[in-house]
Amino acid sequence: MSPSSSVDSSIFDGPAFSHLPQWVKAKLRPIAIEKIQAVYDWVENECIPREPVMAAQVDAKRWATPPLMHELRERAKERGLFNLFLPNHFDESPGLTNLEYSCCAEIMGRCYWAPQTMNCHAPETGNIELLAKYCNNEQKQKWLKPLMEGTASSAYSMTEPDVAASDATNIGISITRDGNEYVINGRKLYANCLWNKDLSFYILMGLSDPDDPNKWNRHTMIIVPCDTPGITQVRNLSIMGYDWAPEGHGEYVYENCRVPAENVIVSPGKAFMIAQGRLGGGRIHHCMRLIGQAERAYELALMRCNDPKKKPRGKLIGEFDSNIERIASMRLEIDSMRLIVCSAADTMDKVGNKEGKRCIAMCKVLVPHKVTEIIDEVMQIWAGQGLTQHTPLPQLWTYARFVRVADGPDAAHKHQVGREEMKKGKEVTERHQEYNRKAKKFAELSGEKFRMMPEDTL
Amino acid sequence: MSPSSSVDSSIFDGPAFSHLPQWVKAKLRPIAIEKIQAVYDWVENECIPREPVMAAQVDAKRWATPPLMHELRERAKERGLFNLFLPNHFDESPGLTNLEYSCCAEIMGRCYWAPQTMNCHAPETGNIELLAKYCNNEQKQKWLKPLMEGTASSAYSMTEPDVAASDATNIGISITRDGNEYVINGRKLYANCLWNKDLSFYILMGLSDPDDPNKWNRHTMIIVPCDTPGITQVRNLSIMGYDWAPEGHGEYVYENCRVPAENVIVSPGKAFMIAQGRLGGGRIHHCMRLIGQAERAYELALMRCNDPKKKPRGKLIGEFDSNIERIASMRLEIDSMRLIVCSAADTMDKVGNKEGKRCIAMCKVLVPHKVTEIIDEVMQIWAGQGLTQHTPLPQLWTYARFVRVADGPDAAHKHQVGREEMKKGKEVTERHQEYNRKAKKFAELSGEKFRMMPEDTL
Amino acid sequence: MSPSSSVDSSIFDGPAFSHLPQWVKAKLRPIAIEKIQAVYDWVENECIPREPVMAAQVDAKRWATPPLMHELRERAKERGLFNLFLPNHFDESPGLTNLEYSCCAEIMGRCYWAPQTMNCHAPETGNIELLAKYCNNEQKQKWLKPLMEGTASSAYSMTEPDVAASDATNIGISITRDGNEYVINGRKLYANCLWNKDLSFYILMGLSDPDDPNKWNRHTMIIVPCDTPGITQVRNLSIMGYDWAPEGHGEYVYENCRVPAENVIVSPGKAFMIAQGRLGGGRIHHCMRLIGQAERAYELALMRCNDPKKKPRGKLIGEFDSNIERIASMRLEIDSMRLIVCSAADTMDKVGNKEGKRCIAMCKVLVPHKVTEIIDEVMQIWAGQGLTQHTPLPQLWTYARFVRVADGPDAAHKHQVGREEMKKGKEVTERHQEYNRKAKKFAELSGEKFRMMPEDTL
Amino acid sequence: MSPSSSVDSSIFDGPAFSHLPQWVKAKLRPIAIEKIQAVYDWVENECIPREPVMAAQVDAKRWATPPLMHELRERAKERGLFNLFLPNHFDESPGLTNLEYSCCAEIMGRCYWAPQTMNCHAPETGNIELLAKYCNNEQKQKWLKPLMEGTASSAYSMTEPDVAASDATNIGISITRDGNEYVINGRKLYANCLWNKDLSFYILMGLSDPDDPNKWNRHTMIIVPCDTPGITQVRNLSIMGYDWAPEGHGEYVYENCRVPAENVIVSPGKAFMIAQGRLGGGRIHHCMRLIGQAERAYELALMRCNDPKKKPRGKLIGEFDSNIERIASMRLEIDSMRLIVCSAADTMDKVGNKEGKRCIAMCKVLVPHKVTEIIDEVMQIWAGQGLTQHTPLPQLWTYARFVRVADGPDAAHKHQVGREEMKKGKEVTERHQEYNRKAKKFAELSGEKFRMMPEDTL
Repeated sequence: MSPSSSVDSSIFDGPAFSHLPQWVKAKLRPIAIEKIQAVYDWVENECIPREPVMAAQVDAKRWATPPLMHELRERAKERGLFNLFLPNHFDESPGLTNLEYSCCAEIMGRCYWAPQTMNCHAPETGNIELLAKYCNNEQKQKWLKPLMEGTASSAYSMTEPDVAASDATNIGISITRDGNEYVINGRKLYANCLWNKDLSFYILMGLSDPDDPNKWNRHTMIIVPCDTPGITQVRNLSIMGYDWAPEGHGEYVYENCRVPAENVIVSPGKAFMIAQGRLGGGRIHHCMRLIGQAERAYELALMRCNDPKKKPRGKLIGEFDSNIERIASMRLEIDSMRLIVCSAADTMDKVGNKEGKRCIAMCKVLVPHKVTEIIDEVMQIWAGQGLTQHTPLPQLWTYARFVRVADGPDAAHKHQVGREEMKKGKEVTERHQEYNRKAKKFAELSGEKFRMMPEDTL
Repeated sequence: MSPSSSVDSSIFDGPAFSHLPQWVKAKLRPIAIEKIQAVYDWVENECIPREPVMAAQVDAKRWATPPLMHELRERAKERGLFNLFLPNHFDESPGLTNLEYSCCAEIMGRCYWAPQTMNCHAPETGNIELLAKYCNNEQKQKWLKPLMEGTASSAYSMTEPDVAASDATNIGISITRDGNEYVINGRKLYANCLWNKDLSFYILMGLSDPDDPNKWNRHTMIIVPCDTPGITQVRNLSIMGYDWAPEGHGEYVYENCRVPAENVIVSPGKAFMIAQGRLGGGRIHHCMRLIGQAERAYELALMRCNDPKKKPRGKLIGEFDSNIERIASMRLEIDSMRLIVCSAADTMDKVGNKEGKRCIAMCKVLVPHKVTEIIDEVMQIWAGQGLTQHTPLPQLWTYARFVRVADGPDAAHKHQVGREEMKKGKEVTERHQEYNRKAKKFAELSGEKFRMMPEDTL
Repeated sequence: MSPSSSVDSSIFDGPAFSHLPQWVKAKLRPIAIEKIQAVYDWVENECIPREPVMAAQVDAKRWATPPLMHELRERAKERGLFNLFLPNHFDESPGLTNLEYSCCAEIMGRCYWAPQTMNCHAPETGNIELLAKYCNNEQKQKWLKPLMEGTASSAYSMTEPDVAASDATNIGISITRDGNEYVINGRKLYANCLWNKDLSFYILMGLSDPDDPNKWNRHTMIIVPCDTPGITQVRNLSIMGYDWAPEGHGEYVYENCRVPAENVIVSPGKAFMIAQGRLGGGRIHHCMRLIGQAERAYELALMRCNDPKKKPRGKLIGEFDSNIERIASMRLEIDSMRLIVCSAADTMDKVGNKEGKRCIAMCKVLVPHKVTEIIDEVMQIWAGQGLTQHTPLPQLWTYARFVRVADGPDAAHKHQVGREEMKKGKEVTERHQEYNRKAKKFAELSGEKFRMMPEDTL
Repeated sequence: MSPSSSVDSSIFDGPAFSHLPQWVKAKLRPIAIEKIQAVYDWVENECIPREPVMAAQVDAKRWATPPLMHELRERAKERGLFNLFLPNHFDESPGLTNLEYSCCAEIMGRCYWAPQTMNCHAPETGNIELLAKYCNNEQKQKWLKPLMEGTASSAYSMTEPDVAASDATNIGISITRDGNEYVINGRKLYANCLWNKDLSFYILMGLSDPDDPNKWNRHTMIIVPCDTPGITQVRNLSIMGYDWAPEGHGEYVYENCRVPAENVIVSPGKAFMIAQGRLGGGRIHHCMRLIGQAERAYELALMRCNDPKKKPRGKLIGEFDSNIERIASMRLEIDSMRLIVCSAADTMDKVGNKEGKRCIAMCKVLVPHKVTEIIDEVMQIWAGQGLTQHTPLPQLWTYARFVRVADGPDAAHKHQVGREEMKKGKEVTERHQEYNRKAKKFAELSGEKFRMMPEDTL
């Protein structure tokens, strides 16, 4: 029996599913189909039309979670739309696979803050997955449970201003044991803004064992409550000029900040093991939300193309052949990006985050770059207005641009993939040498024409 | 039971399967796994090492199918590797789905002439599919059977020098009824070269009913035996300087060329209906073979990166970070192209060629362009040698470049996709107007902040 | 005597000149060399180090020109650095050619607000040039003189929210004569923000003669004092999220706004004639400042490449070959952009703005796009920090991005150039036919080989 | 008096000059104007229309200089169009500057073999310049004079199959002294084909002093007559499948090939000094000819856009807005490439080849790449026919593609430029630190707002 055989297939013609590849549709179980449709209804009917109100509340009080957000989170939880991201191999999971969730994530991406209403926003999702995977029961009760219930909020603190953190072995903030506590000293960048009082704790990666001969065993992951004395937020970091309130991105100084030793995750020196498990899912979710953003930008392009007030040289913008080709390019590229992310999600479902590393890198390198290009093109179609608050395009672009550097710039990921690939050089060379040996055997005649190129050029 | 559950999953670690996405592996039935492996063994062991011998035979006698090709075709048929492309909804099919076959096609693409050894080469595949779909029994017996048995060879003749054939309604070669015959007059481009005496017949599209008010009903598809008096091949057309012997691309004049009326396929005026059914599969196969070409080029890049004789500035080429990043980009892009073609093949399996039109356009627009870029990059990595006969790269590039214009240039396909998409403009605009109406309802307060952008800018 | 022969040529080794092409250096007269050096000293010593103070003053009072700006403008005027942009064919000009000024403009572009300290900022420069060219003496006394003395400030008001203003014949704001006054009704976008009380007047383009059969004679350019009753600024328009205070970009409603008839420039119906004369210089200045921005971003890339704290995988960022190639690409591309703008400036000096139209379009289409790409690449080199306020990169990028749509999007300019070029098709075709006729004459022998391609394919 | 003041300026409206930038026109002396016009007339009237005849003669006898070439060379010499490339600081020069000649070179590039009719073809031009610069009088008499008179023909032999020759210090062919002779042993790639009996000698770079501690002093440049025993041409190397007859690119084995010691240029160990002087001019000429090729391809695009037989969807190809934009992009890009090459030529005139190194690299990196893209785009506009012999496009593209690797691939040139630029990092960092010191001084107030970014992030 095919997974979705009990579902009325006409649902797939609706807007929540119509863009999905056939092979993805075929893998959606009834529970997933129901959730995807529910997420679609929620985002389209309850979130997008509330964007102006939400913006007004954030404007009115910059560094506080708006009341509307609290209200919507309550309602989404009632509708069973909370924590959908947690994959079904966790006990705490609502039961979707990574692939099924990625279909939800795309829809969530259509509204910048919609994921938060469903407790499916970064960095919460990565943190929840990390805590679910690596915490002991006491820790889960204390830190994971409130996050999943939506009564607490967390941040992930890794990057530092003083080192090249794209190579995380450089991370240098000091964590030293002192009795039953760890003492933290140093600086951090980018974890959510402390000025928002809803923030509960950081998951912080620091250098605990600088002298360990294995550089992958020197770092520790520890939970740092926000109200711990010794943490100062120097400033909020803007991203392309946006303060990104009310979550923000802080810059921090830690001075003799003391945390109970029981807050260490797994055990000292295990930060890299933990980090590896964390990042896969989050990167996929980011990318899938970006595809939702690209779709929203694309719809704005179609609107502009169809706007009867905008007729340069007497034609609708959509009647220019150049724009017809642009629209097609965007359409095809968005669809190709979705294939990349869905395939990565499915790979994670099948073989896990670690084996799926290259698929995840493929998303990370290709999707944010392409999505920024697409949104940029839509801005050009909108001309001057496309850059103003008359459209959500500047915000959509900026978020996509941010994802190109979040978790390391494209180049770092490419470098990693490239190093792995280079290792295959030897095997490939041997294979070509084997072609050559056979080619010689096959040739009854001598002479130039029977050389096998390029191995044997004389 | 999952389709491939009875197969030893370790086979998937082998080189015939290791690049396939997980979701594709999961759909392969035992019969497909067996065929893919057999195709891999055939191409790697019997074809690639024979490239020098084959090249020598073609050089020796330019416009004749080389004896080695005839021999290999016999052997491939014995191994059950003939006609694998014909999808399993045809009675004549060896039983693979489009998706399963696409995995074979990629491997075939690694050697330019390997598909022909398996009777899976263009334009034969498209023609066989067309004849299998649209011919009556007599026609099948006479024309289809020999093609499938490999004792005949056919060409497809559509493009013309005198019109813009990317819009096929312009096709103007005249087909007029005269008693029990049709008389053909005009010029054609690109169908295989008549100088090769193994060529048996053309499937020719011409203008039979120029006065039909419906421009889609004016053209007819007719089978023209190569020995019909009145066909002259003016010249062979080179592609980027290659004569592409022994198949070639001819330029023809038809002068009072008379063909029996029974050679009309379906009935007069049905050429567009027939053409639509033809092109999907062929385009997918082309693209999937291109991915095999890209993989072969990529392996050459890895070889060069690893060549101990090539050390500019004292480092292996593969030790330059710039090349590490280039290798990664190629790797990720080839993998993303494969996702596009596999998904299109699967879509055709699920909903047919017509519904899958956009997926097919996605392949056609994105894959050949990207593959030419990848091969071009490999040529740069090989520097001067990359452009010479020391590598197969120039031939690989040229074939990929050719596919960018075969069946119409990219722009024509984009234009078609774009026109379809523009039709959605109205629905999208209405949806945004609905967002607006709701946004107003949600707003208890008046004032600028509650406008929904961009519909209502004041 | 070569223009610069009396100048100590060693000055050209200094940072104010070292990037200039040789042919540009050779054309600089002593007066220009002196001014370029003075501008360099001013920007490097008096402007860039004051960026933090200026930013603080703007933050403190958002919609007012900061006191520091007033102070610096006074000092720049004393140094003889005011109005340098006005080309030397104007009586009011300080004496530089467009080419000589473009060398100043590049340097000014290194600091966002430096041009304003020298009264060389947009839209003031375009407006001054327009008024100097088209106003009568009374108008010059009243409107031009204060602008040039720096005691007044103006805006240019052309774009509208309700039409596609990239085709300016669509401009629809109504200007109707009523006695000795004109009455304006309609909406405008983008002219500087009325909230800044230093703004004195708008030069507004509107529709005065909608029934004129010649669509190029329907519009009028009129001076509108900012304190005219009936103008309402609906909002300030952000650009990619930046409010661009204290100048801003407004969105306006005009309701029965009455202006004296004597404020019409030239006469009614002459807006297009006037607009054509205006835009050339401004576009060149914009582009040349962008090159200065690109140079500043480039220097930041070099800094980061050389930062001993940032060593991913144990190497300086500048030791990665990939970054070595990136730096080279940027260097070569910035230099090529400079050649484009300098050549356009020189062309305007030689043959005027109108004849130089294609050169100006070349700048407009190629420079802002490339500069945004370069700054974007620098942001990647800085990774996360490149997007924050830790660098000026986000602001530099945003301004360059804005210029891609200012004065019409790239596509509109390309369309115009393309339409002009298409007109040459006939002449080119005839030339090829002539090749053919001669080719036939040259051929004593018959046969295929003597065809001239592509005209005569049979 | 401006250089061209005695010339009737209306000549500049003609097709030989109309595309030139104003600043270039202003520098052309009457002698140059006369030569440029003469070259134009020659190429348009005597060369292009003879392309079919020339092709037929080459087809008829593949590895011999066609009789028509000999005839045209005689006639061009009579017209005073021989050796125009040799810059006017050489005694042997016909008197043009590099800039003036570059205007000729562009026109020559319109016909592949036109430069050879004027003795202005690669590698002859580079070799003549080298010999004129570095030979002693005896050598000049023996080797240079016949080249300049067109009675001899030479090749340049540097690249090798066994090393990464983009780093020429790797060159390994052995040159050892034995009495009054040097003995050469090893392999070479790419110097012109020995099969053409008109070839007279090679200028060969080899390794004479492998033990010299300075790697720049190990190599020697020596003249090797073609009839020296011990040279075997293994094969002709095709470029993208073209044999490039009758000049070709050979692959050679040297076995105990003995050359008189007097054939050494300058003295042993001076190869790098000599090579540096050689390459500048040749690279510029290559690039300028490519611009002529791009112009010819562009004209073909205009022809196709204007072809009344080609009307997809009822419109001329040139009536599609997408093609209007494509034509504009090509037009603007070709013009920008010309600026780059003209500026490099002028720089060489002013400061010499060595100082002009970066300008030459700018040409080498940017021009061939862009020209291949432009020709590729024209091929798409011609669709299928664009790839066949119906147009010269495949040959134009292939030659441009070849130039991307000739004299080293783009990446090698970028790497060199980038390494130079990285050296500026220290100075730039210090300048930013100076900004900082001043910023602090300027700030009377303390606090975050007065930080100078990015140097001082806390």
